[in-house]
Amino acid sequence: MSQERTEIASLGEFALIEHLTKNIELLNASSILGVGDDAAVIEPLTGQIVVTTDLLVEGVHFDLMYTPLKHLGYKSVVVNLSDVYAMNATPTQITMSVGISNRFSMEAMDDFYEGVYAACEKYGVDLIGGDTTTSQKGFIISVTAIGEVAPDKFVKRSTAQKGDLLCVSGDLGAAFLGLTFLEREKKIFLESPAVQPDLEGEKYVIGRMLKPEARKDIIEFFEANGITPTAMMDISDGLSSEILHIARQSNLGCVLYEEKIPIHDDTRNAAFKFDMDPTACALSGGEDYELLFTIPQADHDKLVLNEQISVIGYMTEPEKGKKIITKGGNTFDITAQGWNSFHK
Amino acid sequence: MSQERTEIASLGEFALIEHLTKNIELLNASSILGVGDDAAVIEPLTGQIVVTTDLLVEGVHFDLMYTPLKHLGYKSVVVNLSDVYAMNATPTQITMSVGISNRFSMEAMDDFYEGVYAACEKYGVDLIGGDTTTSQKGFIISVTAIGEVAPDKFVKRSTAQKGDLLCVSGDLGAAFLGLTFLEREKKIFLESPAVQPDLEGEKYVIGRMLKPEARKDIIEFFEANGITPTAMMDISDGLSSEILHIARQSNLGCVLYEEKIPIHDDTRNAAFKFDMDPTACALSGGEDYELLFTIPQADHDKLVLNEQISVIGYMTEPEKGKKIITKGGNTFDITAQGWNSFHK
Repeated sequence: MSQERTEIASLGEFALIEHLTKNIELLNASSILGVGDDAAVIEPLTGQIVVTTDLLVEGVHFDLMYTPLKHLGYKSVVVNLSDVYAMNATPTQITMSVGISNRFSMEAMDDFYEGVYAACEKYGVDLIGGDTTTSQKGFIISVTAIGEVAPDKFVKRSTAQKGDLLCVSGDLGAAFLGLTFLEREKKIFLESPAVQPDLEGEKYVIGRMLKPEARKDIIEFFEANGITPTAMMDISDGLSSEILHIARQSNLGCVLYEEKIPIHDDTRNAAFKFDMDPTACALSGGEDYELLFTIPQADHDKLVLNEQISVIGYMTEPEKGKKIITKGGNTFDITAQGWNSFHK
Repeated sequence: MSQERTEIASLGEFALIEHLTKNIELLNASSILGVGDDAAVIEPLTGQIVVTTDLLVEGVHFDLMYTPLKHLGYKSVVVNLSDVYAMNATPTQITMSVGISNRFSMEAMDDFYEGVYAACEKYGVDLIGGDTTTSQKGFIISVTAIGEVAPDKFVKRSTAQKGDLLCVSGDLGAAFLGLTFLEREKKIFLESPAVQPDLEGEKYVIGRMLKPEARKDIIEFFEANGITPTAMMDISDGLSSEILHIARQSNLGCVLYEEKIPIHDDTRNAAFKFDMDPTACALSGGEDYELLFTIPQADHDKLVLNEQISVIGYMTEPEKGKKIITKGGNTFDITAQGWNSFHK
């Protein structure tokens, strides 16, 4: 991070935008016109596009006390791309709007945009527009992501079929435990600033919290292997909440096996340090940005090619309810306890 | 406005979104999938689309002391549609994200969305997505608008030609004077709450501030009369600032005639009440959302069909500078004094 401090008021909005966007080169053939006019122009190559948007507010969605601005820029883009992949689409463009109070310098914005551009480069996405303004308090981020999808190849949440396998990518619960560690260290720091942070061995879970990735690889695996999920969404609010979305919107029941839920060893160890149940962290902890999807049983053999995919259950008729079968063999209703910004 | 008060925390995010979006019917053929999934799906009919986004922050862009929430919802949509029209495109979809503190009730959100839907209906636009979250302070609005345009028929700011006529729709300066009245009444109210507001005769300028319209009719007039502007943008920050954008981005100079700047009689009278120069209000006052555009001189005769369009000057070679010729015959450089949220 730079040590200099240039006040944004000394530049004004147009010079700030010019500064932050001067190195953009549009890479996608569909990006016709980028930053600098009343609107950007896109020429979708596939016939259909998907559009998704997120509003992220300091103090609600992120805490700058332990979130480096570069990571925040990266994550702000990634969480939107995750929604694009969750439609079985390929992200192509984003817009990025920021509202900043005068406590942010131009150098701070450079750090933030360094992360934004790193995510754009990694995922092959063009930044084509946005808005830059002051805020009365805190940092506000609004991202809209656009992606391309072959006509009628997009995958909704509501089209799972009875008997379909319920699958998830990667592993779950880590981001929540990363957040728990960071919140603990913040509390300790506020009480005793001299105490050094103790995050030894928590690199994995903290990395999952601060710098998540979107599952581009899973969508590419589907494409390469002729798999079209019957339903899909990304896991931002916790597995149980998302499973209920797919089941309800598809008007189905489901069975989820606790023992099949993929949990990283580092996540498990982190949970034990807080006397938490790792399964509860996976079910209710948000921000893993893995993909949850259903596929016909006939596609099961194709999945074994990818060790990043776990089959965790199956869809049933609606009358059977939405159930989890524990390792001990007990059956419970799945309840949503995912993150909800209105219920803090 | 409803007298009941339902706390948003009592609903939660999903129920709030369900409540606010339950009556949506997608009207445009290009709107394939709307609210309720990871992303919306659009199938552009024209080959190219335009995308624009705005971030609006309470206390920076609007003051809820004199802005009814319904008007704010309407205006939040309209200002984005204005950017779409400014590309010579037809708006088709929007996303609407809001961040709200707990001082807002569900009934307040109903008022806001009533305005949003009124604008969508008037301009034939579908609300296809968004995000809803809490804010730590104040009301935050982020809108992204998408529009369709025939391939390569979009109009940029940077393509004005030497000799082109410089034109503007409607009249200018009214919104700024509406704001000036509202700020005056707010100040009086805060000092002496018993004093009744004195806004007699200011309906026009206040209406231009609180409930602006986007110039759909001008784009339709262009289409009907075979006119393609060489450059265009909307006037959100003040005429002088926007003229400088077109001149600089087109690498041209220009001549603007003060006497040609269209100013409504009510605007002129309002300016006199504040001892202001009406021309200065038109040049530097923002938020009129009129269209500023250039056309070849050969198209001049087509313009006389539309009394909503004024020719206010012409484009010159860059060496001639950007000049305004006053009613008294003096020539000055045009300077940007438009609104800038970083320079308050």
